[in-house]
Amino acid sequence: MRIVKLNETSRRNILADLLKRDPNNYGAYADTVQEIVETVKRDGDQAVFAYTKEFDQAEIKAGNLKVTEQEIEEAMKEVDPELIEILKKSMKNIRQFHEKQRQYSWFDSKPDGTILGQKITPLESVGVYVPGGKAAYPSSVLMNIIPAEVAGVSRIAMVTPPGKDGKVNPVTLTAAHLAGVTEVYKVGGAQAVAALAFGTETIPKVNKIVGPGNIFVALAKKAVYGHVSIDSIAGPSEILVLADESANPRFVAADLLSQAEHDELASAILVTTSMELAEKVSEEIETFTRELSRREIIEKSLDNYGYILVADTMKEAIHAVNEIAPEHLEIITKNPFEDMTRIHNAGAIFIGEYSSEPLGDYFAGPNHVLPTNGTAKFFSALSVDDFIKKSSIIYYSKEALEEIHEDIEAFAEAEHLTAHANSVKVRLSTIAMSM
Amino acid sequence: MRIVKLNETSRRNILADLLKRDPNNYGAYADTVQEIVETVKRDGDQAVFAYTKEFDQAEIKAGNLKVTEQEIEEAMKEVDPELIEILKKSMKNIRQFHEKQRQYSWFDSKPDGTILGQKITPLESVGVYVPGGKAAYPSSVLMNIIPAEVAGVSRIAMVTPPGKDGKVNPVTLTAAHLAGVTEVYKVGGAQAVAALAFGTETIPKVNKIVGPGNIFVALAKKAVYGHVSIDSIAGPSEILVLADESANPRFVAADLLSQAEHDELASAILVTTSMELAEKVSEEIETFTRELSRREIIEKSLDNYGYILVADTMKEAIHAVNEIAPEHLEIITKNPFEDMTRIHNAGAIFIGEYSSEPLGDYFAGPNHVLPTNGTAKFFSALSVDDFIKKSSIIYYSKEALEEIHEDIEAFAEAEHLTAHANSVKVRLSTIAMSM
Repeated sequence: MRIVKLNETSRRNILADLLKRDPNNYGAYADTVQEIVETVKRDGDQAVFAYTKEFDQAEIKAGNLKVTEQEIEEAMKEVDPELIEILKKSMKNIRQFHEKQRQYSWFDSKPDGTILGQKITPLESVGVYVPGGKAAYPSSVLMNIIPAEVAGVSRIAMVTPPGKDGKVNPVTLTAAHLAGVTEVYKVGGAQAVAALAFGTETIPKVNKIVGPGNIFVALAKKAVYGHVSIDSIAGPSEILVLADESANPRFVAADLLSQAEHDELASAILVTTSMELAEKVSEEIETFTRELSRREIIEKSLDNYGYILVADTMKEAIHAVNEIAPEHLEIITKNPFEDMTRIHNAGAIFIGEYSSEPLGDYFAGPNHVLPTNGTAKFFSALSVDDFIKKSSIIYYSKEALEEIHEDIEAFAEAEHLTAHANSVKVRLSTIAMSM
Repeated sequence: MRIVKLNETSRRNILADLLKRDPNNYGAYADTVQEIVETVKRDGDQAVFAYTKEFDQAEIKAGNLKVTEQEIEEAMKEVDPELIEILKKSMKNIRQFHEKQRQYSWFDSKPDGTILGQKITPLESVGVYVPGGKAAYPSSVLMNIIPAEVAGVSRIAMVTPPGKDGKVNPVTLTAAHLAGVTEVYKVGGAQAVAALAFGTETIPKVNKIVGPGNIFVALAKKAVYGHVSIDSIAGPSEILVLADESANPRFVAADLLSQAEHDELASAILVTTSMELAEKVSEEIETFTRELSRREIIEKSLDNYGYILVADTMKEAIHAVNEIAPEHLEIITKNPFEDMTRIHNAGAIFIGEYSSEPLGDYFAGPNHVLPTNGTAKFFSALSVDDFIKKSSIIYYSKEALEEIHEDIEAFAEAEHLTAHANSVKVRLSTIAMSM
């Protein structure tokens, strides 16, 4: 794995490199996606069936678009009971963490008769996109459904592309059922996103669409944004390990590889103040890679987006971390908690040598749907907050309005909005009359 | 004002009518906006100057793009001192309300050596769009800047189109300065949004762009979403008054008019269970309209998007409110607090006969930047939450990892991610070796 001296030039070049992976840059597919979205909006189920035949080679009709209870029962039987037990343990941790994110309605009252507040209401309906294909990612299913369920969303509709046999992966279906999905539809790609956003004869529209997907899914989510809400647009996975000379090079190497195996666009970066650690990690990576099943993917992603950056000082190292704003950050240093205080931009922060990133992917409880590609500067992990909305509450008594009516009227008139001023005046003249 | 019987057909027709105002439907301008965005991204300041000359007929150069301290001082002198006092009173209320929205970092620890938490960090930089033109809306300036300032954002950059004389409206500038803006640039339209999203020689890029604007601004915000974060895409203003026979028709009429005067696309709707109230409100509206300065706008918006809906029952009335999901909802009924509990979808809820909507626009404290056009089903008022982000914190001790390592390894292997499993195993083998 290449070792690069960290300075402003290398930092800028690496950042520019990483940003090439931005799904917003794939404009070439935007027209195709727009056409799919428009067609599904216009033709509903019929368009869903046609696209599913074209893209997934599956015969889906009105009769089998929605997964039946029987199909769920059959899927549950196909899954290893031990895996089901693990899913349940993981779910417990995920639910416990997300319960702590719950926000509550509040109000503040004053004895002049004013009440101001904020009312929390769950979204009524949510669509969860789950990718299909050979591999099933039940962890992702749990991470998307559980926060919605904790928030109190009534309808949680999952969409996922069927196999050629018209079936949904049994592990995906089992995880969804355990997590509390209310309905599952056999449709994927941009057509699934459009169906959720606008509704079809079989698939009722939802208020928000979450979940990762390929470039078609990402662009379709952006296209329907505004008609519905969406979570952030997911890019390829990333890990950044911040380590000093105290770190165990085998641990660091293993963790870098755990993200590099995701796909060829994944990025794994070590930022360290120790050249000795840098060299040892590079060696360990070679040793491990030889033995890992996803060796080809790993080698490509490390060649493209893997770096070991050696910084002169911890301050410069931390500055680079904040500029890169990684999805996953591990801090394996002598004072990891203190170093954490200086991190402004990271999706999730894993602290200390035993907190390996896969612990967070599967088990610890915090959400593994995280902002990628530098968007941790402004986006957050998927959370219960994504599934609620807030309404302001305003109550003023006659007395309280009397106290400030002149200010409001003057303010409205300064903006030349006389009907605004009038709506206060009309109440005041009634007050005058009633005295 | 037309009176319509509320039933499923009339409700559906009205909803379809209202949704015509959706800024997402103005696809015709999307290409123009995309071109402006690309040009500013490529040419920076030069593109900003050229577009400002073209659209605002103002000569802006590197020397005068950024508002100087002297310009701010001069603007402050031009503004009526009484208005400045009112702005300060209003600011105090807005700040007090938004202080209550602050979220705090938290953690949860267990005696086996696990720490899980959520760290809150303010966004580093934010861009606030403020429309130009003849009218100044200082209230909007306050509502966009104060939540960012309360959240702890370091850089709050405002953009607003200059007049032909190259100056910014003095009231806008004064409000921005009082609220805590750190920099102001004389640029508007899609070019301003692009400059904030990608940065130019003079305007450093920001993490998030907020603030209302015309259709070009709305489309530009959608185009740059993902490169930066944005607030929701603002549509035309709306009021819905839910009232029974106990309501004062003069108050209701005045409040409907206060939104109808905003622009021709604004919507004002009364939903009531009382035909008598419906008729009286209709009469009062005619009387008031004759005397109001923005009569022409009011008549057009009421003709297009104004309705008095008469429902058979309060239950049906409330159902219609939730379907319409208004930006501003007033509840003027016998039991307004109880009726509030049944409202799922509304940006802000004004309760009781003295809580007129302009009170919230200017003074009470809650934010007046609210979700429009049915998006209250999934979006919320602008708040301090818009200017923070959350990083998950995960710490596991050696002991805690030992306890669950088998589950994580099995879960990772079920997803065929062997490098994920390896990152836990490698730590375990060290544990074994050190025993």
